[in-house]
Amino acid sequence: MKPAELLAKIRVVLCRPSHPGNIGAAARAMKNMGLSSLYLVTPRQFPDPEADARATDAVDILAAARVCASLDEALAGATLAVALSARPRDLGPQPRAVREAVGDLLAAAARGEVALVFGNETTGLSNEEVQRCHAAVTIPANPEFSSLNLGAAVQVLCYELRLGAYGGTPPSADPTTPFASPPATHDEVEGFYAHLERVMTDAGFYNPAQPGRLFPKLRRLFGRIRLEKDEINILRGILAATQEKTGFGRRD
Amino acid sequence: MKPAELLAKIRVVLCRPSHPGNIGAAARAMKNMGLSSLYLVTPRQFPDPEADARATDAVDILAAARVCASLDEALAGATLAVALSARPRDLGPQPRAVREAVGDLLAAAARGEVALVFGNETTGLSNEEVQRCHAAVTIPANPEFSSLNLGAAVQVLCYELRLGAYGGTPPSADPTTPFASPPATHDEVEGFYAHLERVMTDAGFYNPAQPGRLFPKLRRLFGRIRLEKDEINILRGILAATQEKTGFGRRD
Repeated sequence: MKPAELLAKIRVVLCRPSHPGNIGAAARAMKNMGLSSLYLVTPRQFPDPEADARATDAVDILAAARVCASLDEALAGATLAVALSARPRDLGPQPRAVREAVGDLLAAAARGEVALVFGNETTGLSNEEVQRCHAAVTIPANPEFSSLNLGAAVQVLCYELRLGAYGGTPPSADPTTPFASPPATHDEVEGFYAHLERVMTDAGFYNPAQPGRLFPKLRRLFGRIRLEKDEINILRGILAATQEKTGFGRRD
Repeated sequence: MKPAELLAKIRVVLCRPSHPGNIGAAARAMKNMGLSSLYLVTPRQFPDPEADARATDAVDILAAARVCASLDEALAGATLAVALSARPRDLGPQPRAVREAVGDLLAAAARGEVALVFGNETTGLSNEEVQRCHAAVTIPANPEFSSLNLGAAVQVLCYELRLGAYGGTPPSADPTTPFASPPATHDEVEGFYAHLERVMTDAGFYNPAQPGRLFPKLRRLFGRIRLEKDEINILRGILAATQEKTGFGRRD
């Protein structure tokens, strides 16, 4: 796959951005590096003249940006979601330095859509948002002042990806078994979780009113696997067979 | 020389910056990456509240910034001056990609003071300014839109220098989540597979007489992660709850 095609398969997702200027800066950084697909999850203010001003010639990326009501909506169709996070999170994936992860991200982009997920300027990503991602990356920084501006963080990630795509970093060999079937998309994986929750609830193993840490733990478990489409079918087949046999929980 | 000492010997010189916000963004990017020495050649407006706002916790770098009447004044004491330039200039040094040049810049910083020289937001560096520098670097970019925001360009250079100073790529972290609970032993994992097989058989999803490729696929799925003891307990808990509810398959 050509470098430009690889970069076209990488989307930038900004969760709850507060400042329209940062949205514009992100769009500019993306276009400078050859990325184009921008998703905004409940931006405080968008569109906005300040976003346009900071985007300069990247206003086309703003015009095509998709505004989403939830992170799940922004991740629909993606087969790998990568959180930018300065620190490890409760039950979330362990962050790797961006440069180390670039080969894996590009290898994933050759097979499916990849999402880079950035948090709010002040609060970053929530634990729940990080838990929806399969991997996490961090930008090595001064430990006494490690919080980069949102647009600057987007710039660094897009820069590393461009250099990687244009031959700086060879795509990594897949560390696990090669995919026998295409990777499952975010929404397919979420469909499996919803199905599992239904069966677990009906079996009395799980009480949605008192969720505790059970589901974050299951997300962490299956998130490490990077499920394939066929595997989702097998897992949902097992769940459906259980429901069929017992008659409980058949609601779809 | 320690990495922090090397970075302390690299100054950022902004020539004729137009927007105070970019000066603040440059200060923040510098401090994020461990640089501290900022020189401003005839800034249009400085100090300025917009610069302070964009600098956030890097206002100390703005407060210590030296405002100079000429580029020569800003380069006084430097032993190497490096221009950021997207293109070769008449009689100027040939630009190299930043990443290729980082080793040389750090080697020079070990011997003396190094200056990174950035041009005006709209016009860039003049030929005369580039000719005052000993070397030039460029940030690889989309040829159709290669002009980075000034603060973003400072971010990329400081990021490369920090990674270079701290030894390139930091040692590999485990790409997956660290173990929250000890890893499961082989026999614990096999116990889970046996339990799963029982439930699947009783649910009519699996026929041990005609196994096909289903179990190899499930082994491949769960084998890609290293299951933890707690996770085995959760998975077997779900299976047991299903059996409890329906009465089938209770054989242990």
